[in-house]
Amino acid sequence: MNSDEDARELAPELQTSRWFNTTHPVTLSDLHGRVVVLVAFQMLCPACVSRTIPLAQRLDQSFDRNEFAVVGLHTVFEHHDVMTPEALEVFLSEYRVSFPVGCDTPDSNGGAIPLTMRAYGMQGTPTLVMIDSQGHRRTQHFGVHDELVLGAEIGLLLAERRLTAPNQS
Amino acid sequence: MNSDEDARELAPELQTSRWFNTTHPVTLSDLHGRVVVLVAFQMLCPACVSRTIPLAQRLDQSFDRNEFAVVGLHTVFEHHDVMTPEALEVFLSEYRVSFPVGCDTPDSNGGAIPLTMRAYGMQGTPTLVMIDSQGHRRTQHFGVHDELVLGAEIGLLLAERRLTAPNQS
Amino acid sequence: MNSDEDARELAPELQTSRWFNTTHPVTLSDLHGRVVVLVAFQMLCPACVSRTIPLAQRLDQSFDRNEFAVVGLHTVFEHHDVMTPEALEVFLSEYRVSFPVGCDTPDSNGGAIPLTMRAYGMQGTPTLVMIDSQGHRRTQHFGVHDELVLGAEIGLLLAERRLTAPNQS
Amino acid sequence: MNSDEDARELAPELQTSRWFNTTHPVTLSDLHGRVVVLVAFQMLCPACVSRTIPLAQRLDQSFDRNEFAVVGLHTVFEHHDVMTPEALEVFLSEYRVSFPVGCDTPDSNGGAIPLTMRAYGMQGTPTLVMIDSQGHRRTQHFGVHDELVLGAEIGLLLAERRLTAPNQS
Repeated sequence: MNSDEDARELAPELQTSRWFNTTHPVTLSDLHGRVVVLVAFQMLCPACVSRTIPLAQRLDQSFDRNEFAVVGLHTVFEHHDVMTPEALEVFLSEYRVSFPVGCDTPDSNGGAIPLTMRAYGMQGTPTLVMIDSQGHRRTQHFGVHDELVLGAEIGLLLAERRLTAPNQS
Repeated sequence: MNSDEDARELAPELQTSRWFNTTHPVTLSDLHGRVVVLVAFQMLCPACVSRTIPLAQRLDQSFDRNEFAVVGLHTVFEHHDVMTPEALEVFLSEYRVSFPVGCDTPDSNGGAIPLTMRAYGMQGTPTLVMIDSQGHRRTQHFGVHDELVLGAEIGLLLAERRLTAPNQS
Repeated sequence: MNSDEDARELAPELQTSRWFNTTHPVTLSDLHGRVVVLVAFQMLCPACVSRTIPLAQRLDQSFDRNEFAVVGLHTVFEHHDVMTPEALEVFLSEYRVSFPVGCDTPDSNGGAIPLTMRAYGMQGTPTLVMIDSQGHRRTQHFGVHDELVLGAEIGLLLAERRLTAPNQS
Repeated sequence: MNSDEDARELAPELQTSRWFNTTHPVTLSDLHGRVVVLVAFQMLCPACVSRTIPLAQRLDQSFDRNEFAVVGLHTVFEHHDVMTPEALEVFLSEYRVSFPVGCDTPDSNGGAIPLTMRAYGMQGTPTLVMIDSQGHRRTQHFGVHDELVLGAEIGLLLAERRLTAPNQS
């Protein structure tokens, strides 16, 4: 292991208040050993709805779930009274979203930015975070994604996973 | 005027509880003399969001407002507690909708279908209603539209308007 | 008939050397009584291939052929040795083009611009020409089209046709 | 190296008669050490034109050329008299294709299938072949591609390249 790898930072654990499309809360700790794409969005953000949610659905269906997971995070930082968990539940049903989605925990001190969004230093929505099978945050992108480049990042992390931990796959 | 034209039905007047993107409530009566496209939608209906709202925006920008008007109608018939006027206001702002949108009046007897939606016999959302310059309902389509055909319907009604009322244009 | 209508110019007759998707050469004279969209293209023009040919196919399928006709015109003004009638025949077959397409007659004096293209003063490809049921050229557009606006132009000419010649439809 | 890797087959060398967008013929031998996507197409194949050529352009622009190369191959197996090298040259110019494209060598015995296409056992166009940095053919797909999956395959081969030959990058 070289110094570059030594410097890698563990992705902050998710802080969530409610989950949909899963029987129990998802933690990054539970996903250790898999490559994870964390998808931060707001249900009334047009670019999230038109581009990132469909992309996340395709990610969820394109890779082996023993190696790879998509996790949605509803990071509401504006219009909190309208983008409630109840509204999110309707949104997820209408848009047929099937991957797990957690509600980022609101700031109990009244700040607009929820806790996980703040811990990751996200600038807005949509944001995609790539987490490797060892739990390190490897890349974080704000905005719409290029699928070829995103696919290549996933392929790189899947290859690392296989080559560094051959008994896992 | 032939019997076909005699049989034309006046479009039922809008029954609305609140408006956005206009300083005063819009009525079909006020729009008499113009061709009107009435766009019924729900803010969490995926086909409405991805197809019909962008189409309505382009309609609003493609034709002369002295001859033609686009009117949005938020016909909430499910999930009423989530698709509130407050949520609609955020939606219209986030999606930069600029044409007038009215909230269809809820049924005070507790029925799910709001009053204008019921009066028009709409089957769901999105629905587009074409109203001629004399106030007659001419066509009503449920679902996503073919732009060429919709454009031709508008052209036909604009031509009728010009040919039957030459002093208006 | 007013002076504006008096000033309308008859569309120049097509000058063609070969036809596909029809048993005999198409003339505007034969199409008198119908609204015509004349679609000028080159088979290796990217905008023609990606946008205008699919649009022309949809036009051909969207309106009543008793009232309306789509006519393709292969106006080769560059790379004449490559965009031959034989190459066009393969192109029309591979792209499943089903409306009639004529080859614009090359200039026998060696000029690059073929005869119909020159007679219409077209600037390049794609170009769409709208011809009314009386044979007048009404609009001519160079470049990619807005479907709503094109549809409205067609609707206007169809309405004129019905209102001025009620016995035709 | 395990038996799976021992079994890998070297990609057959390209057999070509003419090149565009390069000063000298491209060989897989010269590209040893880089991940290669070989893009087989015909200039009058609609799926190639609408989907695969734009994808290949984006591939060429998305990855580091020290590690990765896109190579086009014009595998004409029908309508040979129309899809000539001269016609291809116009096509590449009109569509602004910038990566190297070779003409697959025709069968001198009069068969329809050109030599490289036959050596690879391609079923038609478009076909994409992924070749790793050691020159092995790893995957071969006939038809339109999913960008996420293609990106992941590229990422995997780039990761192998870096991990097995650390001094190359």
